[in-house]
Amino acid sequence: MNTSSEFQASAFDREMMQRCITLARKALGATSPNPMVGAVIVREQEIVGEGFHPGAGQPHAEVFALSVAAEKAKGATIYINLEPCNHYGRTPPCTEALIKAGIAKVMVGMIDPDPRVSGKGIERLTEAGIEVVAGIEEEACRRLNEGFIHRVLYQRPFGILKYAMTLDGKIAATSGHSAWVTGEASRRIVHQLRAACDAVIIGGNTVRQDNPHLTTHGVSSHNPLRVVMSRSLNLPLEANLWETDKVPTVVFTEEGINPPLQKQLLKRKVEVIELEVLTPTQVMQHLYQRGFCSVLWECGGTLAASAITEGMVQKVMAFIAPKIIGGESAPSPVGDLGLDKMSNALQLQRVALQRVDNDFVIEGYLPMS
Amino acid sequence: MNTSSEFQASAFDREMMQRCITLARKALGATSPNPMVGAVIVREQEIVGEGFHPGAGQPHAEVFALSVAAEKAKGATIYINLEPCNHYGRTPPCTEALIKAGIAKVMVGMIDPDPRVSGKGIERLTEAGIEVVAGIEEEACRRLNEGFIHRVLYQRPFGILKYAMTLDGKIAATSGHSAWVTGEASRRIVHQLRAACDAVIIGGNTVRQDNPHLTTHGVSSHNPLRVVMSRSLNLPLEANLWETDKVPTVVFTEEGINPPLQKQLLKRKVEVIELEVLTPTQVMQHLYQRGFCSVLWECGGTLAASAITEGMVQKVMAFIAPKIIGGESAPSPVGDLGLDKMSNALQLQRVALQRVDNDFVIEGYLPMS
Repeated sequence: MNTSSEFQASAFDREMMQRCITLARKALGATSPNPMVGAVIVREQEIVGEGFHPGAGQPHAEVFALSVAAEKAKGATIYINLEPCNHYGRTPPCTEALIKAGIAKVMVGMIDPDPRVSGKGIERLTEAGIEVVAGIEEEACRRLNEGFIHRVLYQRPFGILKYAMTLDGKIAATSGHSAWVTGEASRRIVHQLRAACDAVIIGGNTVRQDNPHLTTHGVSSHNPLRVVMSRSLNLPLEANLWETDKVPTVVFTEEGINPPLQKQLLKRKVEVIELEVLTPTQVMQHLYQRGFCSVLWECGGTLAASAITEGMVQKVMAFIAPKIIGGESAPSPVGDLGLDKMSNALQLQRVALQRVDNDFVIEGYLPMS
Repeated sequence: MNTSSEFQASAFDREMMQRCITLARKALGATSPNPMVGAVIVREQEIVGEGFHPGAGQPHAEVFALSVAAEKAKGATIYINLEPCNHYGRTPPCTEALIKAGIAKVMVGMIDPDPRVSGKGIERLTEAGIEVVAGIEEEACRRLNEGFIHRVLYQRPFGILKYAMTLDGKIAATSGHSAWVTGEASRRIVHQLRAACDAVIIGGNTVRQDNPHLTTHGVSSHNPLRVVMSRSLNLPLEANLWETDKVPTVVFTEEGINPPLQKQLLKRKVEVIELEVLTPTQVMQHLYQRGFCSVLWECGGTLAASAITEGMVQKVMAFIAPKIIGGESAPSPVGDLGLDKMSNALQLQRVALQRVDNDFVIEGYLPMS
């Protein structure tokens, strides 16, 4: 096998791998606990087959691509953003399908992150005499599946903290009023972000203050599971989140809290889960067991601080509107982290900036603790 | 006279006007209450003389440029970023000097903003048979002298609020510790910003918490006047700001406050000014009378909010470091503005973004009230 350090990917190779990523993203938000995968089969620089993995329980991307290519797969090159599987899961191993089809060369974006199987697929292909190159557009392939990778490596969903604040660092006015901090274009990006996630979490305070929908508002057919964390269950009887005919809602609380409200919620088909102790870790553990890869924290500062402290946030996305609201006691995006000195602040890594209409989005990754 | 709407400036014209701006900026921070002005004399697309106004009481840019060009000024074109003066001040009018030298064409960046004299210089030149074009690189020329323009139009210095905050909107940790929010490159830009200003203002709390120097730290020979606003005069006996052998400091307070401390300050050659009522407006009024054009607010949130509310801030420069410090009660850049609804937030105009090493600078102008 070649790795990217030895092999110089051509512009065509990179283009084909980007095509894999584009195909893979057609199933954005729908594949968990599986990764998003796209595959492109090429003969003499011409695409003869392509496909993507539409979701758990369905065939892998390679299978779709092979079926389109049919006889043309013989002697062809396949591009895949993730190492083909070599084990029997819900579907037979893709390595065998590739060998059987007579594929001559396999171009892989990234190795399978699961240490138990990592490299095994490539090994099998190489044994069968197929030329394999790994690491093409690796950074982009990793980013595509950062949720899946985190899930596999840490047995937890990947946590993204998103907030919208004014240029003076407030997520609401002193009164709690926050509609709207950012403009329409930014809010649309948040809807797309939700479409890419398996769940979105808020606290009880956000339900009371903002009465949000937390849906993708039509930008995608996929909506994340809506999650409320509330220790007190001091929640309103009527709320947009309790309308569950299209999008489900789960409320996490502690054992034995407010049975009458629990009953009301159940009547509206809101799922209620009582945990022994309500913490971000416990909730994320539960969401992991549901097979989730990516979870969006859209909560206020107090819950955001707990989630960060417990290591349940990996990425921060700050939407910044160029306006000043002021307010000594106006809420800011992150509560107490126990950091006394500015020199101990959590320095974001791989920071990126995007201008969205009048707003700015600054994103970065928290250091791994 | 032509204005920019009728006249299409050539690339050469724009280059020459930019050269004027570059020359003008050589006196950055040193010209108040005068504007920064540069002049370039050109014959057959060749520069035959140039100059800039070094500071109040010294000759204007045109005079320096004419003196270099000497005989070559006859029939030549002069570029100046500001309309030449037509009145007798500390120096004779430049219009007469241009006419006398035989200048054939005058290219002006912007008209004099003072409504009492605006357009008079151009009128005089046109009467004398000289061709005049105004409005070349006007936006850049206005920006160069935004402090001067504001001073002339509103009889107040131009106020810039600068702060450095984390990506979660805090200017310090809960403890008050703030060294450093942003990196070295950002701090160097702040030093350059100070060099461009006539004064920098902080409150007593910043003296106590940060003990700043507020100098340009060697990036310029010009240092702004250091201004402290303190109603209580509860200030430390020892502070970097009380070292006044190189850079002067003024402390504003109210009448009859803390005479013993006043005495100590005077001993250290700190100027103490007692106002009847200590407000941003009163202080800016005083600084106007000193002939200042641009004042930098580097204060905490409470004073910043007063300055904004009183209309003493025209421009906001937010330095944002991609780090998270957290803290429910950690200070944020702007205190109470009395705005209850997010929809009433002050929307910045002409917003610009700059990446500075790892940090971001977002700047914009407050709406004129």
